[in-house]
Amino acid sequence: MLEAAEVGNKLDKKTFRKAAPKVRTALLEVQKRLAGTSLAPIIVVGGAEGAGKSETVSLLLEWMDTRGIETNVVWEPRDEERERPEYWRFWRLLPPRGKIGIFFGSWYTRPIVDHAFDRIDAATFERAMRRIRDFERLLTYETGPVLKFWLHLSRAQERKRLKQFAKDPRLRWRLHKNAKKYFQHYDDFRPVDEEMLRLTNTGYAPWTVVEAADDEYRNLTVATTVLQVLEEAVAEAEARARATRPHKPPALPKPKRANVLRNLDLAKKLSQKQYDQRLGAAQADVGRLTRKLAKRERALLAIFEGPDAAGKGGAIRRLTGGMSPYHYRVIGIAAPTDEERAHPYLWRFWRNLPRHGRVTIYDRSWYGRVLVERLEGFARRDEWQRAYDEINEFEEQLSEGGVIVMKFWIAISADEQLRRFKEREVTPFKQYKITEEDWRNRAKWEGYEAAACDMIERTSTSVAPWTLVEGNDKHMARVRVVETVRDRLRKEL
Amino acid sequence: MLEAAEVGNKLDKKTFRKAAPKVRTALLEVQKRLAGTSLAPIIVVGGAEGAGKSETVSLLLEWMDTRGIETNVVWEPRDEERERPEYWRFWRLLPPRGKIGIFFGSWYTRPIVDHAFDRIDAATFERAMRRIRDFERLLTYETGPVLKFWLHLSRAQERKRLKQFAKDPRLRWRLHKNAKKYFQHYDDFRPVDEEMLRLTNTGYAPWTVVEAADDEYRNLTVATTVLQVLEEAVAEAEARARATRPHKPPALPKPKRANVLRNLDLAKKLSQKQYDQRLGAAQADVGRLTRKLAKRERALLAIFEGPDAAGKGGAIRRLTGGMSPYHYRVIGIAAPTDEERAHPYLWRFWRNLPRHGRVTIYDRSWYGRVLVERLEGFARRDEWQRAYDEINEFEEQLSEGGVIVMKFWIAISADEQLRRFKEREVTPFKQYKITEEDWRNRAKWEGYEAAACDMIERTSTSVAPWTLVEGNDKHMARVRVVETVRDRLRKEL
Repeated sequence: MLEAAEVGNKLDKKTFRKAAPKVRTALLEVQKRLAGTSLAPIIVVGGAEGAGKSETVSLLLEWMDTRGIETNVVWEPRDEERERPEYWRFWRLLPPRGKIGIFFGSWYTRPIVDHAFDRIDAATFERAMRRIRDFERLLTYETGPVLKFWLHLSRAQERKRLKQFAKDPRLRWRLHKNAKKYFQHYDDFRPVDEEMLRLTNTGYAPWTVVEAADDEYRNLTVATTVLQVLEEAVAEAEARARATRPHKPPALPKPKRANVLRNLDLAKKLSQKQYDQRLGAAQADVGRLTRKLAKRERALLAIFEGPDAAGKGGAIRRLTGGMSPYHYRVIGIAAPTDEERAHPYLWRFWRNLPRHGRVTIYDRSWYGRVLVERLEGFARRDEWQRAYDEINEFEEQLSEGGVIVMKFWIAISADEQLRRFKEREVTPFKQYKITEEDWRNRAKWEGYEAAACDMIERTSTSVAPWTLVEGNDKHMARVRVVETVRDRLRKEL
Repeated sequence: MLEAAEVGNKLDKKTFRKAAPKVRTALLEVQKRLAGTSLAPIIVVGGAEGAGKSETVSLLLEWMDTRGIETNVVWEPRDEERERPEYWRFWRLLPPRGKIGIFFGSWYTRPIVDHAFDRIDAATFERAMRRIRDFERLLTYETGPVLKFWLHLSRAQERKRLKQFAKDPRLRWRLHKNAKKYFQHYDDFRPVDEEMLRLTNTGYAPWTVVEAADDEYRNLTVATTVLQVLEEAVAEAEARARATRPHKPPALPKPKRANVLRNLDLAKKLSQKQYDQRLGAAQADVGRLTRKLAKRERALLAIFEGPDAAGKGGAIRRLTGGMSPYHYRVIGIAAPTDEERAHPYLWRFWRNLPRHGRVTIYDRSWYGRVLVERLEGFARRDEWQRAYDEINEFEEQLSEGGVIVMKFWIAISADEQLRRFKEREVTPFKQYKITEEDWRNRAKWEGYEAAACDMIERTSTSVAPWTLVEGNDKHMARVRVVETVRDRLRKEL
């Protein structure tokens, strides 16, 4: 791909000056329309040192309304970033809907540099490129176009540029401190760049390789490409918004007669004495083990799903019983805030990831996407259908980043739920736990069962398996949860 | 104050067990009501090592709904915190309305330790205590009660506790790594603690000093105090919410006949040639100087206020013209997001503070509180009246934290505004800049003038003075802005 950008494309200043005002007005116009859509376009600017990355972006910022653009520079990770999975730093910089995010340095930087310097092998590099494809696909689906510009210089052009920059005090500072070193490795970088372009030049997020030696050509090419992509995307988003039909919940899925949930033996019980003994011992172990997390550069993320009144809250309280309040946080899923709605649905979970040494516990989780959002029609069919993959990829990233992911489904029978609902209605300090919505959800019991089985089937991975917990007996369920966490921590730490 | 907590308060286990269920149910009940109010109570837990801080909070977490509580541990600052004013780390941990924030380690920790070890003198310590009073007053006004518990042990009791903890492997980890060292300095800490309590035991945020040697007494004292304060605060907040009357904008203030704005000579002009020359030179200087910010551990925060069409956007574009896109961000003030509304009004500015080496430019700013919010009645009288102090305190903190604060008021005459409004209505790429609201604001010209004069008078401080810019001639205004920034940067760097 790079050779095609060494053909000598140029633009004279007069042509540029003639074209500029039109492009500028159109960019402002489309940016104003963009502000009213659900799009949050991303612009990635990569390429050779001295190729004019910052000049090009300066022009865009000059032409457009900077108040709607967030420019991000991603170099060395900060300490809070090092204590979390790699992509945490990118997720936290994603622009909200209606704005544009520009990235200097991006998810491409580390794998390219590492591979060019032989710090990672081809297979690891390819794996990093696959991760990028997954990430950009998710962004494209969720918040619109990912524009990627690669500003290319031939070896001779780059040498010339670097010399020119080095001589001129007004330009010198623009070079990255490693520019010279990188140029000495031009021949190591070039095949890696080619491979990167090949592996990530996808249909949904294609690269625009720009011949960068001529300023006017480069600037106008980038500006017109941005204009064209935004105009298309905004027009589509506006059409989609107009076409929105009144909300209608989908038909409920039916569970298979035999399934993993029905297979559970819900009659299992534990005596008070056994319960006290085993719970106390396991809690002490969990408390001790969670204090080891920091030293091992690990974190724990435990999520709880299951029908209303399954006993999630009670199990969570027993799990945290042995932990220091310094270490854990419990997050209950409520309606997303508007900032959360302004980002892809996984953003709210990325932003709350525990850092090394910490425990985060979710009472309900990202699986809402394929449970309540699927069943109530809050997510479109294509959205929940792709969510399984997105979630598996998310949990794989967490796991690679040192987060131990534990997922509990607490199962109860429909009869047991009814018994507990009735009990809640008459117990003063439990009344707040039962609402109209609980009864409405109960009416969809079989739909939820089917969706849960789909979910368990599609998201039980080796790094983050589901633990199905027999929940009719609360003693049983709580001991099971705390002991399972203990066993996993023992194994991992 | 501390001696009063060495009188031997105790509670037998039986009394505790009898009282506990009632307190627990009431805490859950008030927490549930709290979720529906605009309150975000803060609980600070301080005191001796081994006094049972984490045990006390564990009990609160066990008794209440952890999903509505954010527990924060504040020890050593992280790199992103070190690159910003000290209180940034506290602001970013403030809970949203409806939730409770618990702080282990807090704004008290650093000054107490520094003073006990003689790293800061009495005057600096008193200054830190004043800052705390300002902070807690603001929190109390804005988001409700700040509860502060000091768990106290006498010298003998603390010695006994530390020995007991050191012997028991199940307790040992609970001690801070400096616990022993701190105990050796018991006599240095004690007078500092006393002084701290005296200086910060305010009416709006009083301390509860708790005799901590007896677990049951300590736990029940804290729990009942939390219960009582929350019940009062929630009842008040509910009553306030019920009493809300339909919104009615206040009467507009009248400007004085002679005032700082009318004193400006708006006829000043600059020729195109002078403009090009001076602007280009100043831009280059500003570009060069902003690159120095990082090395000097400084940041720049420039805000722009002024009537609609005063030319704020144009001035900002000229100011950033010489800067690298790596370094600056322009933020336009739109309606706050719901997460921003869920925090004190200054929170949205704290969260976006530039770190060392960076420039943040605001097109409108926190001064909206005493301009549009005052004039439109979005802020109550008591709210905008105390805002001047709060803002001065905010800017003082920024300045101490290495942020260079620059404030520009771009002034134009009413006639010039009218001319520009009309021009905007007929220029295609400027039409987006003019709305109905602009015409409505224009009708209140004199009110805005009076409010601006009040603001300039009350918030022109030595660390962050206002620069009044004659804006009828755009050349004049832009050169003035860029040169003023250059001169300030030269002086500071």
